[in-house]
Amino acid sequence: MLPDLKEAVHKANLDLTRSGLVFMTFGNVSGIDRRKGIVAIKPSGVDYDTIKADDIVLVDLEGQVVEGWLNPSSDTLTHCEIYKAFPDVGGVAHAHSVHATIFAQARREIPCYGTTHADHFHGPIPLTRLLAETEAAEGYEKNTGKIIVERFAGLDPMSLPAVLVAGHGPFAWGRTPADAVETAVILEQVATMAFGTIALSPRLATLDRHILDKHYLRKHGPDATYGQKKGDEA
Amino acid sequence: MLPDLKEAVHKANLDLTRSGLVFMTFGNVSGIDRRKGIVAIKPSGVDYDTIKADDIVLVDLEGQVVEGWLNPSSDTLTHCEIYKAFPDVGGVAHAHSVHATIFAQARREIPCYGTTHADHFHGPIPLTRLLAETEAAEGYEKNTGKIIVERFAGLDPMSLPAVLVAGHGPFAWGRTPADAVETAVILEQVATMAFGTIALSPRLATLDRHILDKHYLRKHGPDATYGQKKGDEA
Amino acid sequence: MLPDLKEAVHKANLDLTRSGLVFMTFGNVSGIDRRKGIVAIKPSGVDYDTIKADDIVLVDLEGQVVEGWLNPSSDTLTHCEIYKAFPDVGGVAHAHSVHATIFAQARREIPCYGTTHADHFHGPIPLTRLLAETEAAEGYEKNTGKIIVERFAGLDPMSLPAVLVAGHGPFAWGRTPADAVETAVILEQVATMAFGTIALSPRLATLDRHILDKHYLRKHGPDATYGQKKGDEA
Amino acid sequence: MLPDLKEAVHKANLDLTRSGLVFMTFGNVSGIDRRKGIVAIKPSGVDYDTIKADDIVLVDLEGQVVEGWLNPSSDTLTHCEIYKAFPDVGGVAHAHSVHATIFAQARREIPCYGTTHADHFHGPIPLTRLLAETEAAEGYEKNTGKIIVERFAGLDPMSLPAVLVAGHGPFAWGRTPADAVETAVILEQVATMAFGTIALSPRLATLDRHILDKHYLRKHGPDATYGQKKGDEA
Repeated sequence: MLPDLKEAVHKANLDLTRSGLVFMTFGNVSGIDRRKGIVAIKPSGVDYDTIKADDIVLVDLEGQVVEGWLNPSSDTLTHCEIYKAFPDVGGVAHAHSVHATIFAQARREIPCYGTTHADHFHGPIPLTRLLAETEAAEGYEKNTGKIIVERFAGLDPMSLPAVLVAGHGPFAWGRTPADAVETAVILEQVATMAFGTIALSPRLATLDRHILDKHYLRKHGPDATYGQKKGDEA
Repeated sequence: MLPDLKEAVHKANLDLTRSGLVFMTFGNVSGIDRRKGIVAIKPSGVDYDTIKADDIVLVDLEGQVVEGWLNPSSDTLTHCEIYKAFPDVGGVAHAHSVHATIFAQARREIPCYGTTHADHFHGPIPLTRLLAETEAAEGYEKNTGKIIVERFAGLDPMSLPAVLVAGHGPFAWGRTPADAVETAVILEQVATMAFGTIALSPRLATLDRHILDKHYLRKHGPDATYGQKKGDEA
Repeated sequence: MLPDLKEAVHKANLDLTRSGLVFMTFGNVSGIDRRKGIVAIKPSGVDYDTIKADDIVLVDLEGQVVEGWLNPSSDTLTHCEIYKAFPDVGGVAHAHSVHATIFAQARREIPCYGTTHADHFHGPIPLTRLLAETEAAEGYEKNTGKIIVERFAGLDPMSLPAVLVAGHGPFAWGRTPADAVETAVILEQVATMAFGTIALSPRLATLDRHILDKHYLRKHGPDATYGQKKGDEA
Repeated sequence: MLPDLKEAVHKANLDLTRSGLVFMTFGNVSGIDRRKGIVAIKPSGVDYDTIKADDIVLVDLEGQVVEGWLNPSSDTLTHCEIYKAFPDVGGVAHAHSVHATIFAQARREIPCYGTTHADHFHGPIPLTRLLAETEAAEGYEKNTGKIIVERFAGLDPMSLPAVLVAGHGPFAWGRTPADAVETAVILEQVATMAFGTIALSPRLATLDRHILDKHYLRKHGPDATYGQKKGDEA
């Protein structure tokens, strides 16, 4: 079932690990077939060297396995909440990449200090709250998804396609599994440079809003001019 | 004698150096045959490129050579003390990996700031005291082992499988030599992210105990759900 | 038209990405034919793996395409302003290299703390001001070039061949596209070491002027002694 | 003349660049034939990829070329002063390796914070003073050598085989060109870890003298026990 989606998710998982973001097996990418409401996701704790497209697990939006002989990623229910709340998301990527995780652990959002950030994220990268003890006990992974969604009240997940889960690490998304991986890679670079920027200028004001808008809209939306296709890259 | 153990120790030493943790020849992994009370360990100061499984040295628990034509690692007696005090340990790994060594040199334990840490260590990574002058003079390596054991009074070495020796560097262990290497690799990653977390948020509280428990127990013990085998990964 | 220039610009773009300075497709190198007043530049948002010398776009000094089937780099008008104001510049390179971008984002110039810097830059690396809102709205890329040129009032762009655009990143240049790439690589190294120097000694005075002069003039100008050719390396 | 020395110096220069310490062409290794009083050194500003053993330049102890068709390294006279003052030195290595250069630029010696340092250097890494203006003008490279020698008044250059030249970078040495490169590599690692240690514990006391002695003497001198040869490794 859904061999193309499995293939795309398999390739995106390999791209994530080749990007250097994944430490050991701590990363996972999923994709969704919106018509069928089925999510394809990496199996849990499996070595990237040996994984095949056929090993990708299919689950429904409550995380129940529909097809596959391996357990799905332990973060599956977090992915599912993101898909349920953000209807334009087609892929989700999670990795404990060093600098994005440092911001998540330090419980600081990533301010926009420069155009590398503004080119891809239309504002600071949001940070969730910590889970309460009952939330962690009753449904850790699902409630992690819920506090992500809660944090995006009033925010547009498609122009701000990543979040830092406090004390855990980043989740990134996009219109496809490949987009989600690209966002995760850019997020790590943005986090690396924000980390150094804070070290040099701890009380720096963030980038002027008009420059943030200019750069973001140069690459996204109806007036985008970057790249080879006029108009929205999506 | 014990060709399988030698092979496992040889492979673990190569994995340690391939992981990027070993600088020059400053690292060593050992394994133990509990029935015979014999430890297999890397020879001292030998190049990783030329070492063969047959070069692995066999010693008893007092560090006396039982088989082998090379001197055992200069840290052998430290490994032996760990094996004598912690009966479930089957492998020990030591490397001067950069960030774990930085914490050891700075004489700070590694607090638990996030789930990457909590997934593998059920609490902060302990720090030993410094050796007194007479202890260093009378038996430096053996007494290094003794202050490690002393530091674990009241702690469970299997759910906290690493230590920082003050002014020196980390030792890590596990049920097998391969487990010990994996712990050393994870420790370095955890140290790297804790280092950055402290830079961003110097007065940060550590992760809530209930999240630490949740993550640790998701991967370890009778209720573990991570990976492909239900139950304890060991 | 201008196949040699296209070839040189193509090679310089590949060298820039091989140097590790380019993250994703965020970098571009151009070169100029001064007699014809034509600039050759990388196309916008194109993958470095697939780009060929024939894909290099030719534009006039106002950024109008003269030859080529792809859109030129979105930074083209910034390059053009540099060529118009600095008549000895033959190549311009731009990349969001980590440490130079950190200084640009932190809005700090790079002081000269050592001879690695003094060997290549005859003074601190200048920082531009931020663009005003009307400047960004009316011509973002062209005005970025203009504030670079404005910052060099009273400075010699050939002995100080790089700039940090506040909130954005570095631009570097030289007599050829290859020189521009070399400058960008050296700038990143100098920025990396200045970053660490500030961390260790936050209130350090910059290098004595006489040592800056000695090192710079050892490599540049009529009395240069470095390398295999006596005299100016250019 | 002296083909074995040229070969050893050539190999040591390649090892230096393979170690990742050399940025562009900014590094050089030399060796000496003590009976003839002739120093073999890398030519100035030559690409490491194309250099051959035959390109190594032979000079006398005043830096005059004895054999070779290329200019010797611009740092030749600094090497010569080291050879003249320290009779047991057989090789000298210089590279602008990042962290050692950061300490040199920050004008701080490298304190001994741990056993990685103590295993190789019997005390903190000394820092020279800056050159006075007349010293720089009258003989920059030779006077750089002289302030190195001046700094070692009362110190043993063979148990402390490296120095930081203020505002410039490190020089390292040993009994052979290969030893000098090994010292340069260890120095960079020690500097990296000291840099992080200072970040975590800015007011840390250095390692107890008795542990420094214990570790240094475990590897060096008549009672050394490290490695496969009993006694002094030299």
